[in-house]
This record gives sequence, structure tokens and C-alpha cells, in this order.
Amino acid sequence: KLAETLSSQYGLNVFVAGLLFLLAWAVHAAGVGKRDLLCFLTALMLLQVLWMLWYVGRSYAQRRLVRPKDAHAGARWLRGSISLFAIITVILGCFKVGYFIGFSECLPAMEGVFPVIHAVHTLLQVYFLWGHAKDIIQSFKTLERFGVIHSVFTNLLLWANSVLNESKHQLNEHKERLLTLGFGNITIVLDDHTPHCNCTPPRLCSAVSHVIYYLYPFNIEYQILASTTLYVLWKNVGRRVDCPARPRMQLGVGRVLAGAALGLGVLASTIGVVVVYLVHIGRSRTKSESALILFYLWATALLALMGAAGLLGIWIYRTDEKPLGEKPLGESKNPARKLDADLLVGTASGSWLISWGSILAMLCASTRPRYTWFNLPYSILVIAEKYVQNLFIIESVHREPQRPCQDVRMLRVVTVCSGGTSPASSCARSGAVAEADQGSEAPGVVRGNLCSRGKEDEERGPEGSPRPAGPRSFLQGGTRRSVLRNVAAFLFLCNISLWVPPAFGCRPEYDNGLEEVVFGFEPWIIVVNLAMPFSIFYRMHAAASLFEVYCKI
Amino acid sequence: KLAETLSSQYGLNVFVAGLLFLLAWAVHAAGVGKRDLLCFLTALMLLQVLWMLWYVGRSYAQRRLVRPKDAHAGARWLRGSISLFAIITVILGCFKVGYFIGFSECLPAMEGVFPVIHAVHTLLQVYFLWGHAKDIIQSFKTLERFGVIHSVFTNLLLWANSVLNESKHQLNEHKERLLTLGFGNITIVLDDHTPHCNCTPPRLCSAVSHVIYYLYPFNIEYQILASTTLYVLWKNVGRRVDCPARPRMQLGVGRVLAGAALGLGVLASTIGVVVVYLVHIGRSRTKSESALILFYLWATALLALMGAAGLLGIWIYRTDEKPLGEKPLGESKNPARKLDADLLVGTASGSWLISWGSILAMLCASTRPRYTWFNLPYSILVIAEKYVQNLFIIESVHREPQRPCQDVRMLRVVTVCSGGTSPASSCARSGAVAEADQGSEAPGVVRGNLCSRGKEDEERGPEGSPRPAGPRSFLQGGTRRSVLRNVAAFLFLCNISLWVPPAFGCRPEYDNGLEEVVFGFEPWIIVVNLAMPFSIFYRMHAAASLFEVYCKI
Repeated sequence: KLAETLSSQYGLNVFVAGLLFLLAWAVHAAGVGKRDLLCFLTALMLLQVLWMLWYVGRSYAQRRLVRPKDAHAGARWLRGSISLFAIITVILGCFKVGYFIGFSECLPAMEGVFPVIHAVHTLLQVYFLWGHAKDIIQSFKTLERFGVIHSVFTNLLLWANSVLNESKHQLNEHKERLLTLGFGNITIVLDDHTPHCNCTPPRLCSAVSHVIYYLYPFNIEYQILASTTLYVLWKNVGRRVDCPARPRMQLGVGRVLAGAALGLGVLASTIGVVVVYLVHIGRSRTKSESALILFYLWATALLALMGAAGLLGIWIYRTDEKPLGEKPLGESKNPARKLDADLLVGTASGSWLISWGSILAMLCASTRPRYTWFNLPYSILVIAEKYVQNLFIIESVHREPQRPCQDVRMLRVVTVCSGGTSPASSCARSGAVAEADQGSEAPGVVRGNLCSRGKEDEERGPEGSPRPAGPRSFLQGGTRRSVLRNVAAFLFLCNISLWVPPAFGCRPEYDNGLEEVVFGFEPWIIVVNLAMPFSIFYRMHAAASLFEVYCKI
Repeated sequence: KLAETLSSQYGLNVFVAGLLFLLAWAVHAAGVGKRDLLCFLTALMLLQVLWMLWYVGRSYAQRRLVRPKDAHAGARWLRGSISLFAIITVILGCFKVGYFIGFSECLPAMEGVFPVIHAVHTLLQVYFLWGHAKDIIQSFKTLERFGVIHSVFTNLLLWANSVLNESKHQLNEHKERLLTLGFGNITIVLDDHTPHCNCTPPRLCSAVSHVIYYLYPFNIEYQILASTTLYVLWKNVGRRVDCPARPRMQLGVGRVLAGAALGLGVLASTIGVVVVYLVHIGRSRTKSESALILFYLWATALLALMGAAGLLGIWIYRTDEKPLGEKPLGESKNPARKLDADLLVGTASGSWLISWGSILAMLCASTRPRYTWFNLPYSILVIAEKYVQNLFIIESVHREPQRPCQDVRMLRVVTVCSGGTSPASSCARSGAVAEADQGSEAPGVVRGNLCSRGKEDEERGPEGSPRPAGPRSFLQGGTRRSVLRNVAAFLFLCNISLWVPPAFGCRPEYDNGLEEVVFGFEPWIIVVNLAMPFSIFYRMHAAASLFEVYCKI
């Protein structure tokens, strides 16, 4: 406990100091510039690299020892997406080095060193997470706690740095649009950080600086995902191990055609809408308005669909639970699970803040142009949809695997099932062991249910035997599961869709203009810039959670 | 779990909407004024009052049922301080009504209704907390969860409202000082909310409006304390009961003369320094500088003393633990305990932010007047002192009661002790039962230790018998405990002392001027205004925790 407090306070101090460097840069403080910020971040990264090397080396030396692992931490898909985003981050680093070379005359050397160190840091960290994300550290607690918390906050600072860069860029674009539209009444100062010299091949340079901003969203996601994974590792230091086995997810693609097709359609339409929006917005007043109306109509329809899907899912869960009586859902003490739920609710607050701001502005504005009316249902639906979706996800994640057939005769099936297959087969893999160890009241039934999932991959083993459990209840369970899977798949793709617009610069909160009139330009920009990163992260995190839900059903 | 998420999301939405009303008022938004804000707050309070009446009525109807209580929630001293602050809040309400009557020509009626409703709400809430703060609600969970979370966020919003009022007032005072000193280079606009008509007895009005601002700090503390107590109540809804008995604290005043005397001396000097500071600051440049230097010197000395005391306490704990081996400290799942620790670290971040800002500004400023040098050790010590103090408090709170004598022979003493006294005597009161039930490994030893505390109130009962446990170890334990008590008492009074200056308008972060030059006036003001409420609350919360530590030792 003491070590935990020691290290968390150290981490917070590092973070706070870094935030002030960021603030100083953002407000163009006298005497503190980008150079100091980059020096600070580089020093933090180097320290983390050293620590990771030490840790990897030590665990390599002790590789003979069997060490406990946390089954819930660092799921494979999570590490997979971290790796994917990390690759894009490294590519971004390459572009940054190119940008530096182009402007090398007038940029400080730090701007070139930083991306190189960052790339090294990224690669090593991905390797570290692949190897050690599940570790539960039991020895040398203090030093390791410090290292992990240092890594957590280093990644958070890198995240904040990227977010700040991205926000500044978006804000500049927005101001340029306002200038085009001829809003002279707001005094607009472009917050410009471009260097004061010419780039050697000018067209290449401008292309590079454009590409950089399309890669930032991925970098942002990478940093925050790495940071959450490390945080779970930190919470796991010195913890009692509760479930030594690992519940492997399995990805059945069958029977979710409806949800997936609908979701893919939504994704395609999203890309269309975003392109149209970005082309039209800021060109002229009528074009801007039509782009806004298009966006609001599209988003309202999508959010209504998603809300309905979420309600359907919750309704299925509720009607399912009734016959089982009021059993309490599993109070999970696992840090990974708890963090997931907290993050969902916490980051949703970001977009709630923006949406309530829009609603308030709508209600109190003195003049309301026609297109702003579309803003009201959109904002209300944003709030309601997140509310419903969070309920659905948390209900799914915290729920023990479902028991569609509560027949004790299933126990026989279980025996057949777990006896007739090798530990690597789909039955043992589907988390039955882990969940049973987690203290569910009826482990036999759980196993039975999970085994009965075998019907979806009957070709893998001979466990087509769940039939004796009664065809009616089984069918019902099957339909139910299939509907839930469709809901999860659909919501997953919709969340990816909704991640795209704000991440790539389609932000009606800026372009709408209404809130800026009511709250004033500066305050509203500050609110949006503070809340938007959380709103964007929410979508990605919800998508990740829904993927987990999908695999679990 | 579902009800928990449902209600927390509802609460967050209420909170976010309220924050936007506050923001709108703070930035003088077009169309949204103080009237709307007060309407919103009043509606929330009325809703909470209705809910509390319903709850109180229902539990009165069911008063025959024995319901479980959480022993750690709502300690007596906590409820006592809430009551004290509540009384001042009601007095503040009276002054506000007086202020409204004075300006009744031009103030909206809401400004008069709000303090009345607020006073009713305060009184009822205090009654509610006295009666029900320890409840662990097991039935009708959903409605009660909603009610409690509604109360939590209503109180938080009232807190934010008071903080905003106070901050605006402080900022205006600071700007007036700057005007006096002739800083024309910063464009200063007084953020004035005074009504545009004359008060009927002018001198009385200005007196009232001055007094109001001296009462605000207490109101702020009241709201936040009520809100944390209600939060614990919310976390307790539907929880398993782990310790049905209640550990009563006892307040032994003996043997802490050194710490208390030193602390009282500090408190007296604080009041002196604050008065001198407030009189001198802003009169002229030299007077301001001397006031700043005086404050820094005083604070640096005090913080160094406190840090030393904290280190001494930790050192005693550490040396004490060594012979017992590496036993893990109790991982408490109790929401009240966990919240305490989280709040300490979380709110400390507020002042770390300010201090790191000062350090950064010191390091990067181009010109450094002489008096700013005193700022550097002060800021570093603020960080270090909070770090050490948090460690000390968390170590103390999370520690099982100490076992100075691990002799199994103590068990006999226990029997003598618990047999020879009535349940109301000091022995049974000192928490022995509760702690033993909490699953400590050696309940007998714990009891023995707690009984041996009886020597401090030997006049109360015949339990002077712990002597047989061995005079040497007992003496050592006694000295140790006495030192720890002195440390806790000293730190307690010092934290109260350090609460006074920022709460009553002695804020060198404003008057220093250095940070404002480096970061710019607006950004630094925003940072200070966001971080300062947490910094002030930290002091009060640390004092409360230290009081608990003191009672526990």
C-alpha cells in the first residue's frame, strides 16, 4: 500500500509537471518553448526505455520461474490493436523526421531527435506489452511499481501532447474556415507554430505536413491504449491471483450477417458523409449549412438506430434474468474489468458536457437559424445513446456467461464435453475454466452452456451432444445469443463509424456557430478542446469493449 | 451493478448540465444568466428535499427492523463538523436574504428564494446525515441509489457554485490590487456582478456583502463534506456488510502537549501572518513585496517542520514493521476508507499543479526579482510536504491497529479486560470488536493492545492490568504511540493553519506576479482558479484524516 501511494504520487507529479510544459507551449509562454517540452518528454521516454530493458532482461534471466498471469489483462485483440496503431505511429515518426529534414535550417535539433526516440520507445513498448502485459509482479515491488507508473504517465503525456497538436490543428482549420466565411466580428488569431523558413522541396513539405495530421488520430489511440494497458499492469502489482487460467476469446463469424452488413453499410455511409462534409464546410455559407444539415440528419438516424439496438440488447438481458431471480451480478474485483467500466462512464462525460452545452445554447439562444434545430435531437440522442450503450456493455461484461438452460442434466453433457476434448479445443478455450474458478455459483451449468456453444464450430470436435438439454430452451438460447451477437457487431461497427468524423476533423461543434455565440468563442473552444479527446477515446474504447462483448456471447 | 451504472450516469449528466450553467454564468453568456442557474439549483435541491423526506418517512415507518450499518462511514466527528459548517451556511443564507432585501428593487426574485430553499435544504440534510449516514441500503435499491446520487451531485454543484462565487470575488480583489499598483499593461476588466441599483442603507449593505465573503469558505467545506458523506452512502447501497459493530473513537488529550502546543503556536502565528499579509498586500510595491517575503518565509519554515514531522512518523512506522516481517497492510474494500485515500492524493494534485507551475515559471523567467527567490523553496516544500503527509496518513489509516507486544500471553489480559468492563467502557469502545471482526489475523492480540490503551484513562475502570505483558515492550510501545500522537496532533493543527490563508484570500500565487508574466495572465488565472479549490479542500480533508489517525493511535 505504501509503495502504491509512493509510486502513484510520483507519477502524478511527473504528469502534472508535464501538463504545465504543455500548457506553457500552448499559451506561448515566455521563456518556455517547444524545445523544453520535447526535452522533458524525451527524458521521460529514455527513462522508461531503460526501465523496460531492465525488466525484460530480468525476466529473461528468471524465465524458468513460473509466474502468475492475469487472464483478463492485455487481451490478444487489445495487444493486436496496439501493435497496429504503433506501426502507424512509427510511420508518423518517419514523416516527422522528413518534416524536420525539410525545415532543418530553423528547427531546433530536438524536433529531429524526438521522433527517433519516440519510434524506439514505441517499438520497445509494443514488444514489452506483448511479453509482459499479463504479468502479476510479486517481487521487487517498489522499483517495478515506479517503472510501471512512470510508463503510464509517460504515455499519458505523449497522448496529451498529440491531442494538443491535433486540437491546435483543428482549431486553426476552423479559424481559417471562419475567415473564409467572413466572420470579422470574432477577432481571429491563427495559433501558428509553422517554422519561419522555407522548406527545400516546398510541395513535398506541405504534403508531409498534411499527411501528419491524418495520422495523428491513430497515434492518439495508441498512446491511450498503451497507457490503459500499463495501468492495469500497475494495478496488478502484488495482487492476489484469482484466475490462473486464461479465457481465450473465439470469433465466430456465422449468424451475424445482418448486424455486420448493417454496420458495414453504416461505415461506408460515414465515409461518404465525412468526405462531403469536409469538402462542403467552410466553402460558402449555404454549403456549410447543407453540410451541417446532412451531418446532423445522418448522425441522428444512426444514433437512433444504435439506441434502439442497445435497448433491444438490454431488454433481452432483463427478460432473461427474470426467471433466474434477483441474483447479483458478479462484483468483479479485477482491475482490468473495473477500469473498463469506469473509463466508459468517465469518458462519456466528455461528450455529455458538449451535448449539454449544445442543448443549453439551443434553449437560450436569441436567434435560431433553421439548421441549428437539427442540433437539438442530435445532442439529445448523443446523450441517450451513450447512456444506453454503457448500460448494455457493462451489463454484458459484468455478467457471468449466460445460462440459457438451467437444467441440472446439463452436468452430464459437461462431463462428456470436457472429457472428450483436448485442453486446446474450443470447449476448454471458451473461458469455462476461468469463469468457473471465479466463483460462479453453478460452475457445472456454466460449463454446460459454454460447451453448447460448440454447435457453431461443430466441425472442430464431436461435442454436438448438447441436444439432450431440450430443443426448445436451446433454440431460444440460440436465437437470443444470435440476436445479442448481431447487436454487438452492429454497435461495434457503428462506434468505429462514429469515431471517424471527430478524429478526422469533422466537428460540427465548431462549425455550428450557435454555441460560440451563446458562450463566447474562447470559452466554448476551451470546453470543446478539453472534452473532445475524451469523446473520441470513448468511441474507440466502446468499440473495443463491444468486441469483447461480442466474443463473450 | 446495472442500477449503479444507471444512477451514476444520471448523476453525471445532472452534474455536467449544472457545470454548463455555471460556465455560462461565469463567462456572461448571452441569454443564460444567474437566474437560470439559481432556478436549476433550486429545482435540484427541492427534488433532493422531497427524496430525503420520503426516505426519512419510510425508515421511520420501518424503524422496528434492524438494518445493517457501516461502521466506517459518517464518523461522529465528521457529522459534527458538517453540522458546524452547516450552521455557518445557514447564517450565510440569512445574510444573503438581507442582501437581497437591500437590493430588492433590481435583483430577480430568485436571488431571494434561493437562500431560503438552501437553508431548508441544509437543515434537512444535516438531520438526514445524522440519522442515516451509516445506513447500508438493501431494499428498493434503484430508487434509493438515484436519490443518493442526486444528492451527491446536487451538493457538488452547490460546492462548485460557492467556489465560483468565491473565486470571482478573489479575482476581483486581485485585479483591484493590480490597479492600485498601477499595472496598466494588463488589460483589467473587473468581472462585476453587483446589481445596478442602490441599496437602501448603503453602509449596512457593503458590510453585509463583505461578511458574506468571509463566510463562503465554511459553506464550501460544508458542501464538499456533505457530498463525500453521501457518496460513501451511495457506494454502500447493496453492499455486503463486513463489520456490523462500530469502532468508536476516543480522544485522549494527555501526553500530546508538545505537539498541540506547537500546533497552536503555529495557528496563532498563521492568523498574525494572514492579517499582516492582507493589510500590506496591494498597498504599495514595497509593502507588497515585504508581505510576500514574510509569507514565504513563514510558510517555508512551517512546511519544513511539517515534512520533518511526517518523516518522523513514517520512520516510526517503518522501524516498527521490520520486526514483524513483510506483512501486507490491510487491503480495505471499505468505500469510506478507499475514498479517503483517493481524495487525499487526488486533491493534492491541485496544489502540485500550482507548485510545478511556480517552479517552471521560476526556472524559465527572464527577470527574477529578489522576492521571487523565496517562491522556489516554498513550492518545492509544498510538493514534498504533501507527498510525505499523504504517505503518513495512508500508512496510518490502512494499518491495522498496532501490535506493540506480540505476546500470546496477552490473550489472558484480553479476557480479563473484556470481562471486567461494561460494553460502554473505554475498552469495548476503542474499536476492538470491529477490528477483530474485520479479519485481522490475530484478533486476540489486537484486543490486548487496545485494552492496554486503558492506561491513559485508568481512572475510568480497573483495567490497569496490561502490565503483565512485559514492561519493556510496553514502555517502548507507549513512547512510540505518544510520539505518533504528537506528530498527528501537530500535523492536524498545521493543516488547519494552512487552510486559513488561501481560504481567506491570502493567495501569493496571484500576487506574486512571476507566473502571470511567464504563462500570461488569463491562462495562469484559469489554472489557479481550477486548482485552488482542490488545494483548499486538501488541507481540510487532511486535517480530518489526521484527526482520525490521532484517534486511532
